[in-house]
Amino acid sequence: MSQPALVTLTTDFGSGSSYVAAMKGALLAVNPQVGIVDLTHDLPPQDLVATAFFLSDTLPYFPAATIHVIVVDPGVGTDRALLCVEWNRQWLLVPDNGCWTSLEALAQTPVYAHRFTERRVSLSTVSATFHGRDILAPAAGHLSLGLSPSALGPRVESWIRLQMPLPVETQAKVRGQVVVVDRFGNLTTNIVLRADQPVQAVRIGSEFVLKFVRTYGNCEPGDLVALTGSSGRLEIAEVNGSAARRLQLGVGTPVVVEFG
Amino acid sequence: MSQPALVTLTTDFGSGSSYVAAMKGALLAVNPQVGIVDLTHDLPPQDLVATAFFLSDTLPYFPAATIHVIVVDPGVGTDRALLCVEWNRQWLLVPDNGCWTSLEALAQTPVYAHRFTERRVSLSTVSATFHGRDILAPAAGHLSLGLSPSALGPRVESWIRLQMPLPVETQAKVRGQVVVVDRFGNLTTNIVLRADQPVQAVRIGSEFVLKFVRTYGNCEPGDLVALTGSSGRLEIAEVNGSAARRLQLGVGTPVVVEFG
Amino acid sequence: MSQPALVTLTTDFGSGSSYVAAMKGALLAVNPQVGIVDLTHDLPPQDLVATAFFLSDTLPYFPAATIHVIVVDPGVGTDRALLCVEWNRQWLLVPDNGCWTSLEALAQTPVYAHRFTERRVSLSTVSATFHGRDILAPAAGHLSLGLSPSALGPRVESWIRLQMPLPVETQAKVRGQVVVVDRFGNLTTNIVLRADQPVQAVRIGSEFVLKFVRTYGNCEPGDLVALTGSSGRLEIAEVNGSAARRLQLGVGTPVVVEFG
Repeated sequence: MSQPALVTLTTDFGSGSSYVAAMKGALLAVNPQVGIVDLTHDLPPQDLVATAFFLSDTLPYFPAATIHVIVVDPGVGTDRALLCVEWNRQWLLVPDNGCWTSLEALAQTPVYAHRFTERRVSLSTVSATFHGRDILAPAAGHLSLGLSPSALGPRVESWIRLQMPLPVETQAKVRGQVVVVDRFGNLTTNIVLRADQPVQAVRIGSEFVLKFVRTYGNCEPGDLVALTGSSGRLEIAEVNGSAARRLQLGVGTPVVVEFG
Repeated sequence: MSQPALVTLTTDFGSGSSYVAAMKGALLAVNPQVGIVDLTHDLPPQDLVATAFFLSDTLPYFPAATIHVIVVDPGVGTDRALLCVEWNRQWLLVPDNGCWTSLEALAQTPVYAHRFTERRVSLSTVSATFHGRDILAPAAGHLSLGLSPSALGPRVESWIRLQMPLPVETQAKVRGQVVVVDRFGNLTTNIVLRADQPVQAVRIGSEFVLKFVRTYGNCEPGDLVALTGSSGRLEIAEVNGSAARRLQLGVGTPVVVEFG
Repeated sequence: MSQPALVTLTTDFGSGSSYVAAMKGALLAVNPQVGIVDLTHDLPPQDLVATAFFLSDTLPYFPAATIHVIVVDPGVGTDRALLCVEWNRQWLLVPDNGCWTSLEALAQTPVYAHRFTERRVSLSTVSATFHGRDILAPAAGHLSLGLSPSALGPRVESWIRLQMPLPVETQAKVRGQVVVVDRFGNLTTNIVLRADQPVQAVRIGSEFVLKFVRTYGNCEPGDLVALTGSSGRLEIAEVNGSAARRLQLGVGTPVVVEFG
């Protein structure tokens, strides 16, 4: 690549953590010219489902050739594998725990993976508990310098797939759940509505019947509404307020959409 | 510009949010070589006054040609406009909600704005609730590649101006309020003192009379003092401690400076 | 240097703070092409010992020629000095408060320092309380453009050294303490074990006897274990849980390792 290579970092380390900084050092030691972009370091600790929604909501916006290092790794220190995945002409360096597999449905090109076996691109000492710093970050540095993913290890045809919470749909309604709560208290669900589905009512928990709107445009501050959010999924929001605080509800709450 | 272009990001999304990452993707998809600098993603949600102080305290330090994407946007989904502002040879891409207008008083060159109407520089699908990702970030990418702001839409001569909390001054005293509390518990006010004003006493709330000092140099740990802070405004601090915790006071608390 | 220069930032300002953004502006105003890498802005406020562990756990991973701006500065506003330290062919711009001196034991080249006296590389107005923005960030910009550290001020042969909490070792046991608690609730200690020390038991507080393991590989979720962590120091962890929450213990808790 003639353009400067780009490496993004996504972790659950916490932004106050020395782990993030050590990973950046290990990456820059291989390629001091690489561009580092922080996606987040504040994913809920060891939460693979939250990571899956995060990646699905963000990676489709990135350009080809981006290298993503993703470290949400409850299995570190066991014999779980590490993968280099090619997805939509982007590369993901990630533990084989399924946190990325919801991206498969969004792929426009075939998805490949290589399983890490080659340790010559790792730090000289590999710890038992921090493969992000010792293996993935240096590998990202080498990829950014032109190393072929096939040099990292053999191509594999299978990987761990994550069981995502899926909505259940009938002709009369769809039943899903809250999967992400953002900083504004918006409750994002796993429900994707089609344009031809005439929404009659939206219930959250067992009590609340919400107005379904297209935008906040015709709403008053304090209105509790359901709308298709920026993720393309149904979202419950309080206009200029916090639905999460108002309803005292969070991740896992059932949501039902009834069709007219 | 021959130098690599620079785009900063300022939001209230929260650093754990997928929104920040999606914006970075949408920006890099247009210009993979752009340099991204995070200013903050942790502004108080939808707080325009806090955003105004943040911008006034930071943007004057940036070089010419910097492009700032600012997304604190309680009006998203309504018909509020989006602006491309030229301020001190820097560009601000920002909702027309006044969060930037306290910068006007600091301008050394005329302030101009263009109102976004051209959607050819936006994502192909523009959501109702996330114009930072769908419009502003791609526009920043195009500006960084040399697009003229006039290509974004017509020049406008007026914009929403934010009502800032202003101090009230008489010959004997000035009465203002706390406007920012930092992580150290320092209480920053909206009061700017002139060198020729002989400070006799500083009161915060209705009870506390504080020592006015120039630096922490002659103070003891635990001293509660008032001084001109790094923003140029009066600040209440506990030396090596937290004035906010000690006084149990926060944003909005009245502060009075009496002259001798 | 022909490669783009790299400046990292490490502070206790908090990631929501305008101080971080103002420093970045002051740096970019000197060198708009510099690469900025955030290490953290969430160190415990004014905590020199936590800063020392952070730096020891991260700076050894960075490449030569990296410039690190470190602002944890409880003495700002007093007459404490500012230093430009050369350590392992990297540069540290840092208040002379000892927060970096635990790195001396890790140096592979002689450690030098220059004491800031030259103010021509500072902002034209230097505040009493924010030397990170007014002195260190512009100096980092000038160093990244090739300025020699000797232009910042005279070489000094001594500096403040921080008293670190050190473990006490006998033939039968070593007694240390918890020094860092990470986001996963792992309790990192100041104890470094040698491979030839046959660990018989690990006690934390006065009650808990822990299993000593090499990895999480043979453990069950919920196991409370001691192991050598990624820092090289002894660490207490709950497998897939939080030892800090389970034990209700934190920084300062005594830890004893008994040898067999």
